[in-house]
Amino acid sequence: MVSSKLSARSRYVYSAIREDDDLADELRKAGKKVIKLSSGDPPVYFPTPKYVIDAYVEALRSGKTSYSRSQGVSELANAIINRYKVRYGIDLNDQDILVTSGVAEALTFLNSALVDYDDTAVILRPYYTQYPVAIRMFGGKFLLGSYDEANEWDIDLDGLARILRGRRRKPKYMLITNPNNPTGTVLSRRALEEVVEIANEHHILLISDEIYDEIVFEGSTFVSVGELARGLPHVILNGASKAFDATGFRIGYAVVPGVDAVSEELKHKIADYCRVRLCASTPAQYALAAAMNNRTAHEKAVGEMVGAIQRSVASAVKLLDENPHLTTVRPRGAFYIFPRIDMRSLKFKNDKEFVGSLLREKFVQTTRGSGFGAPNHFRIVSLAPVSIIEEAIGQVNDFCKEHSKSHH
Amino acid sequence: MVSSKLSARSRYVYSAIREDDDLADELRKAGKKVIKLSSGDPPVYFPTPKYVIDAYVEALRSGKTSYSRSQGVSELANAIINRYKVRYGIDLNDQDILVTSGVAEALTFLNSALVDYDDTAVILRPYYTQYPVAIRMFGGKFLLGSYDEANEWDIDLDGLARILRGRRRKPKYMLITNPNNPTGTVLSRRALEEVVEIANEHHILLISDEIYDEIVFEGSTFVSVGELARGLPHVILNGASKAFDATGFRIGYAVVPGVDAVSEELKHKIADYCRVRLCASTPAQYALAAAMNNRTAHEKAVGEMVGAIQRSVASAVKLLDENPHLTTVRPRGAFYIFPRIDMRSLKFKNDKEFVGSLLREKFVQTTRGSGFGAPNHFRIVSLAPVSIIEEAIGQVNDFCKEHSKSHH
Repeated sequence: MVSSKLSARSRYVYSAIREDDDLADELRKAGKKVIKLSSGDPPVYFPTPKYVIDAYVEALRSGKTSYSRSQGVSELANAIINRYKVRYGIDLNDQDILVTSGVAEALTFLNSALVDYDDTAVILRPYYTQYPVAIRMFGGKFLLGSYDEANEWDIDLDGLARILRGRRRKPKYMLITNPNNPTGTVLSRRALEEVVEIANEHHILLISDEIYDEIVFEGSTFVSVGELARGLPHVILNGASKAFDATGFRIGYAVVPGVDAVSEELKHKIADYCRVRLCASTPAQYALAAAMNNRTAHEKAVGEMVGAIQRSVASAVKLLDENPHLTTVRPRGAFYIFPRIDMRSLKFKNDKEFVGSLLREKFVQTTRGSGFGAPNHFRIVSLAPVSIIEEAIGQVNDFCKEHSKSHH
Repeated sequence: MVSSKLSARSRYVYSAIREDDDLADELRKAGKKVIKLSSGDPPVYFPTPKYVIDAYVEALRSGKTSYSRSQGVSELANAIINRYKVRYGIDLNDQDILVTSGVAEALTFLNSALVDYDDTAVILRPYYTQYPVAIRMFGGKFLLGSYDEANEWDIDLDGLARILRGRRRKPKYMLITNPNNPTGTVLSRRALEEVVEIANEHHILLISDEIYDEIVFEGSTFVSVGELARGLPHVILNGASKAFDATGFRIGYAVVPGVDAVSEELKHKIADYCRVRLCASTPAQYALAAAMNNRTAHEKAVGEMVGAIQRSVASAVKLLDENPHLTTVRPRGAFYIFPRIDMRSLKFKNDKEFVGSLLREKFVQTTRGSGFGAPNHFRIVSLAPVSIIEEAIGQVNDFCKEHSKSHH
């Protein structure tokens, strides 16, 4: 027997989002039409805009296929600087920008650079699946705040203050997601201001994952942490995947605007992490730069996409509200819906069994809430057109009816 | 003061290969023509073949821009399976293939999945810069074997056996590089057979980084560990960057052929790591699949590239041999040359000062040997055409003459 058994940390490395992909593939091979509502993947329904593809092709044709600057090509760094200036009035320079292979890589670098064995970091439940994995991979533990379902999933500020009070060893960072995955919440300015205040009071680095910042529905307003945390150490995460409709490009970035000692040390160290793995995809970086710089074309594309998403989400919520076994907070952005399941009224023992049976019986693939730290919920990705969404939610409603304890 | 000081591990995260890039950029901005011999980046001199670019463009135009299967799209997995069957007679199935964002990501996943705090792993000096970083990032320590300069940089087998003898806690893996970076060695079949035997005897997982497996000069023969280690747990690392002349695509892969318990556990866990970060670049994977499947076009392109590299390396070695301050083992593959510097005959205190001064005075960028664990050496990347290589090595020779202790 070779002694190479796996590391202790590796048992935490797992993704609930993709756990049923193999089963779904088997069902498809058996001739079933599976509706996939489990992957937050805009290009499946909204082809990546032609002008972005053209820029990508131009980069390939003009020989942009070699390694490139580890922290990101200057064309993309400049496009990001301009984006933050125009959208949020934030001044950045190219040292503040760190381009990564998706936000996933940025999260790995940040946790590796910050978290020592037995350190803590604050995340809020329900959380994106990678957050606790990224902390635990480096020996850390997470302190769990929460988004409050009773308050439209806005941040539970009292709970957050309670977690931090009297703690001798400070958490290494506090991480929020806005707009939120899996709830679709757009955080209120008041809550964000208080979070910034709490981070300042307790001297904690604030990280804001804002990958959905352009996917905000009519009537809601998104505020970037960058607008509120000027002068305080903070990190903003973003990328090509969602607003730029290009998940498969694998381009994310971290912005570290501060000139304080903590921010300076962090941005230089993350640049070292970038150098060790050489670079992110070179031609994809040029494509994202073009997507950001062509503001007219981008506004048109993202506007149409957000409009369509908003219609899908509205249809889904309307049908979900007819289901007596589910309670749904209406999302204000992103493309996720996170209904609570009244498990006592159904013949399932938990949300895992619920989504597994839903897939096997109705061929609708969703994700269990326990994967996001919130049992008795499930996540629906509402990117498909209204007709498909209505068909799928119709199946969800039939499924609940058939498995109701009052059903005979 | 925010408490977010950096983690202890992060001090190990550093790359000697890119440490002078900023200085080189400054020199360029000041109007100097810098010859960069520090980056193993084929597309800079050999444009990525048109049929590969065409396949990449086709993938983009046909909407391959969404997330894809985390362990790699089936088209690429099949192309890799076919490549190993045809080149090496190795039978693989798609569970054995794990596609990553460059070999760098595969190394990170492997170390994270295998190395616990205070574990050890065996690497050989001179080593690729990322190897010790990847071990230390996860709390491990490296045991240092060596390639023997006196034996054309082939593996020091006695030394390797000595390191492992009587060790109660087994190293988690042993990692070799063939053909080698930074020495350009193609390891002998005899040495490889013995390494496989040692790994078997001591029950250690063997990892072989074979990213240069198609860049082998006339008269030398490359043998894959996969041909020799059948039935034993082993991992082969490879990717698009070198033989497929596409560094900027950021596509690597790990092959885990075994059906033993260790291999099975490892390949399923690395698949979990892949799922957590969602996927590698989707369109780039289709491009690499096309590059592998079009064997006629690929053989022609790689043949021409290897011929040109071989001519550059031969010219460089010839000129380096005229330099009384340097001793150079002739490379047999890859595109690196790793001369030993007779430091006592020069007015420098170490190799770092040597390469720094060479860049500032002669505008030739190389990499210090100490970055690869071998002080008093420096690494030259010999990808440029003969005329540029001759100019650059001429500068190296002038530089040594000017800084010779016997120079007046």
